[in-house]
Amino acid sequence: MLRAVGGAGPVMIIGGAEDRFRDKVILGTFADLAGGADGNIVVISTASSLGDAATQAYRELFLGLGIGAVMGIRPEERTEADDPAAVSALSEATGVFLTGGNQSRLTQVVAGTRLGDAISNAHDRGVVLAGTSAGASALASHMVAFGRPGPTPKHRMVTLAAGLGIVPGVVIDQHFEERGRIGRLLALVAQSPSLLGIGIDEDTCAVVTADRVLHVLGRGAVTLVDGSHVKTDAYRGKGYRPVMVSGATLHSLPSGYRFDLRGRALLTGPDALEDGEAST
Amino acid sequence: MLRAVGGAGPVMIIGGAEDRFRDKVILGTFADLAGGADGNIVVISTASSLGDAATQAYRELFLGLGIGAVMGIRPEERTEADDPAAVSALSEATGVFLTGGNQSRLTQVVAGTRLGDAISNAHDRGVVLAGTSAGASALASHMVAFGRPGPTPKHRMVTLAAGLGIVPGVVIDQHFEERGRIGRLLALVAQSPSLLGIGIDEDTCAVVTADRVLHVLGRGAVTLVDGSHVKTDAYRGKGYRPVMVSGATLHSLPSGYRFDLRGRALLTGPDALEDGEAST
Repeated sequence: MLRAVGGAGPVMIIGGAEDRFRDKVILGTFADLAGGADGNIVVISTASSLGDAATQAYRELFLGLGIGAVMGIRPEERTEADDPAAVSALSEATGVFLTGGNQSRLTQVVAGTRLGDAISNAHDRGVVLAGTSAGASALASHMVAFGRPGPTPKHRMVTLAAGLGIVPGVVIDQHFEERGRIGRLLALVAQSPSLLGIGIDEDTCAVVTADRVLHVLGRGAVTLVDGSHVKTDAYRGKGYRPVMVSGATLHSLPSGYRFDLRGRALLTGPDALEDGEAST
Repeated sequence: MLRAVGGAGPVMIIGGAEDRFRDKVILGTFADLAGGADGNIVVISTASSLGDAATQAYRELFLGLGIGAVMGIRPEERTEADDPAAVSALSEATGVFLTGGNQSRLTQVVAGTRLGDAISNAHDRGVVLAGTSAGASALASHMVAFGRPGPTPKHRMVTLAAGLGIVPGVVIDQHFEERGRIGRLLALVAQSPSLLGIGIDEDTCAVVTADRVLHVLGRGAVTLVDGSHVKTDAYRGKGYRPVMVSGATLHSLPSGYRFDLRGRALLTGPDALEDGEAST
């Protein structure tokens, strides 16, 4: 079971537009991992341009899923993210949820502040973290700041920034199928072959457990792009032209499949998700 | 140089929407390989719904590129494609061009007829063949008949038919970047790992020479999907759900790069395109 794996908490990387009206497979899993009726979820809506409406929508959802307590915080400046009040909100949290919006706004306010440290500390002590869309991108060490869509990798089609660093060694792209982002993930991995590229479709979630196993949940697929053996001319980048990427290894995994992030390989055999959460 | 490689003629697989107004890199290469002023090009427009207008547009283009003679044939029924007149048109051809349109219409009229054999015989005696869009798809042994777009591979998202068989062991998809077709190419290769998937962007061309080397020409990229090492659950296909594809090897090659179709590997070192046609 996800929560039983180890010291650090599971990290739920959600591709955006997760189901909020029907089975709520992903949000229900998060609520469950956050402790249900005993749970205390903090929603961080800094990424969103909707203000408190974003917090309120998730608050109602999580209360509807049986969570005992839900609070929202929304620092808009780094000084607010360094305020001890924001930090103390996380000390009792059993789950932290990062909304969608603009991931650069989220990291530019939160990364490297006391709140950023508090999120990381919560993760270390076993709290489940979830981020959707922009909140998903921000969970990685390396983050897509912005870029262009399209399946063909091109020079300068994507710009990288530092994320919150909860999941190291990866770069995450969301709304992956819906916005046609395979090209920029290939370009990223060609440029930075130490990073594993993770693309997540809408209403789909990659749950990374403390043993560095990625479990797929939800309606779409999680795409993994491994550049370990790539040959490329990315270092010669000029203009907005196609970049040569040869030998990338690609995995497209639907719900129920697992991937070993350390070994960069599909896992077979019994799933650790023994309560069947991932087998929709 | 492309024409010097061997007995069989080069095959130009064009991703559609090739440049007809500016440098005409792809069509100019075809005209050159077809013999220039001594050339005799046959345009086959069966795929097109535009009737003789499709033939006429290419006729003017090729004459403008200095070709000595251009004629069009347009069988619309299999009986016409079995007519010796259609076949004799190809006996003197130095180049054959298949227009875009509907590839199923093209193969359902031509494949397995005397005209189909004549195209294959022309190829065998060294004549350059080119196909754009639907005409490109039809050149392969296995052909996408129709399907849905999107980057995530799904069960039943694509339907295969038999092509003209000029390029064996591959399946070709065109308008590749523009129509977001990586998902269906992954699904195809998962289902049929003996086939190499070839996706070609618009205004881009894969030239396959007799030594089974693929040369990239034009503005976009050629994507190669190799399923040699794929693990998949495609055989369990149900409904229109994501299919698991793990371990596909992907190459995205811009103009000037070459790929060995036999070894399924990027080629490095001096390009056989010694006259610089591919180095835009």
